[in-house]
Amino acid sequence: MLPELKSLEQFRSLLAAMPGVDQAAELAAAQHNGKLTKPPGALGRLEDLAIWYASWRGNPQPELSAPQVIIFAGNHGVSRQGVSAFPSEVTAQMVLNFEHGGAAINQLARLAGANLDVIPLDLEHPTQDFTKTEALSESDLIAALQTGWAAVDPASDLLVVGEMGIGNTTSASALVHALFGGEAIAWTGRGTGVDNEGLAHKAEIVKQGVALHRPHIKDGLDALLCLGGREISAMVGAIAAARLLSIPVILDGFICCAAAACLSKVADGALDHTVAGHQSAEVAHQMVLQKIGKVPLLSLDMRLGEGSGATLAIQLLRGAIVCHSGMATFAEAGVSDA
Amino acid sequence: MLPELKSLEQFRSLLAAMPGVDQAAELAAAQHNGKLTKPPGALGRLEDLAIWYASWRGNPQPELSAPQVIIFAGNHGVSRQGVSAFPSEVTAQMVLNFEHGGAAINQLARLAGANLDVIPLDLEHPTQDFTKTEALSESDLIAALQTGWAAVDPASDLLVVGEMGIGNTTSASALVHALFGGEAIAWTGRGTGVDNEGLAHKAEIVKQGVALHRPHIKDGLDALLCLGGREISAMVGAIAAARLLSIPVILDGFICCAAAACLSKVADGALDHTVAGHQSAEVAHQMVLQKIGKVPLLSLDMRLGEGSGATLAIQLLRGAIVCHSGMATFAEAGVSDA
Repeated sequence: MLPELKSLEQFRSLLAAMPGVDQAAELAAAQHNGKLTKPPGALGRLEDLAIWYASWRGNPQPELSAPQVIIFAGNHGVSRQGVSAFPSEVTAQMVLNFEHGGAAINQLARLAGANLDVIPLDLEHPTQDFTKTEALSESDLIAALQTGWAAVDPASDLLVVGEMGIGNTTSASALVHALFGGEAIAWTGRGTGVDNEGLAHKAEIVKQGVALHRPHIKDGLDALLCLGGREISAMVGAIAAARLLSIPVILDGFICCAAAACLSKVADGALDHTVAGHQSAEVAHQMVLQKIGKVPLLSLDMRLGEGSGATLAIQLLRGAIVCHSGMATFAEAGVSDA
Repeated sequence: MLPELKSLEQFRSLLAAMPGVDQAAELAAAQHNGKLTKPPGALGRLEDLAIWYASWRGNPQPELSAPQVIIFAGNHGVSRQGVSAFPSEVTAQMVLNFEHGGAAINQLARLAGANLDVIPLDLEHPTQDFTKTEALSESDLIAALQTGWAAVDPASDLLVVGEMGIGNTTSASALVHALFGGEAIAWTGRGTGVDNEGLAHKAEIVKQGVALHRPHIKDGLDALLCLGGREISAMVGAIAAARLLSIPVILDGFICCAAAACLSKVADGALDHTVAGHQSAEVAHQMVLQKIGKVPLLSLDMRLGEGSGATLAIQLLRGAIVCHSGMATFAEAGVSDA
């Protein structure tokens, strides 16, 4: 059972003391992998994935039987600046679509055998427009972190966090621009599909917001206060909670990875229990993945959010685990080694 | 019900008259895709996959419920030339491992909900050493094609063909070198894991074999006669049978794609009902994929064979199909369009 989050300092302290990998399980898993009926290394990244998962679960031959997908939804004051091809009411409409089972993530979560939780965060109260003032008050941020923190099921054995929030690629672009520098336009993509003119405008909004707040941003939590969204902050809380609960995480697309980047700027190694599920078509996602040191499992030009790419990738991780834990060894099968 | 194959000319004639895609289903599937609750194109390649599958199944909103995986096994006379890191008896040992459920493909087929059939082809009679003479007689080739042809379950709705055969990367390299030209070394990889010296020797064997037979090779069936294997020929027969049965195919790694390349050199468009499941770590696989015009769904450095990469990719195709056929439209969900 995790403690309730009551302050940003408490969150920073918990992360500073977060648990590491189970090195004994990692070694035992690697040794087991070497005995399986296949040429050494022939399952490629599946072998690395299985050993990574075993090491974080503390079990040399683990199962993956209870994945959880959580979709956080939030609205963004900056969307009043005309940065999205869709109107803000779509956030709440899509929450209903999730609840009624009609969205892509519903189909993909069912396929993956995952529990799907949908958590709207105060949709009727968008964040403040970050080109004018801080997006979130400190109490708003703590509440959003706590929502994500408390949403992780301690009985689950894998976590995917997804999001829905008209305007949230603008917030994500501002976050990673503030954290990693460079030019605003390089971190800005088309989101749900803005045209060239819309893209230039969106980059200008990102640039303005970051210019206003950069002097006040020292870590990932400062960035969330100034430029974040409630759903993005909840994702940060959930990814952190998973670490304390020894639950591995598959990261989704650009917005999820912007949240992950914020977490990585609170404590070193805070993403060691995560893998990147996919590389999205959102142009800056590849740059964020490089910054957080992750190589994506899939690259299928998806750009939907909702946790869709990461949830699709659950089956790849599961494939890795069923091979690792279910295959016969050379000795068991009576197969001659090389 | 397919006719029994009795001659190579009959096989060529059947392929010349093979059915094409259902264009009405393709159009209806594309129109349906445009109405689903997501920004246009946001599911990336999943959208193309779903429409492709719908078009070959003749159903605008299809299901994928009965995939079949067939593993063909064969032994190779050329393995007496020392081209593999494993001895030939491993082929039969691995067939037993498949039958007992201990191999990677057993775990992956179960995960994919696929029926797995294991078909050894005359393991006690390896092909002839292709550096000395033709690998297969015409009657041997017809028998192997027929074995694959008859192995496809007409009630299945997706096919993966995999293989096991010590020495078969050497045969596959010779086939694609003969079909596509270039240098033998460029088409030759490490297979189960030969060292640098072994690789150079293997490339020399490939070069010798192709030099001996090239004057006699006019199409993909000639190539199989001269340089092929029984399991590779059975894969060709199965991929062709799937086409006549309107069953889409996911291609596996280097050896499967060498078989597919042979089929593509019998009749234009013979691979239109196939997608590439993955790009393997076997060095020439990427070149073969380019030659047959396929972009792989996965690239995870796998190099096991057994249909493992393609079977892992079944879940990606299934993800595409469940989204396509299960999502709500904008109108159904009451979501505002862009």
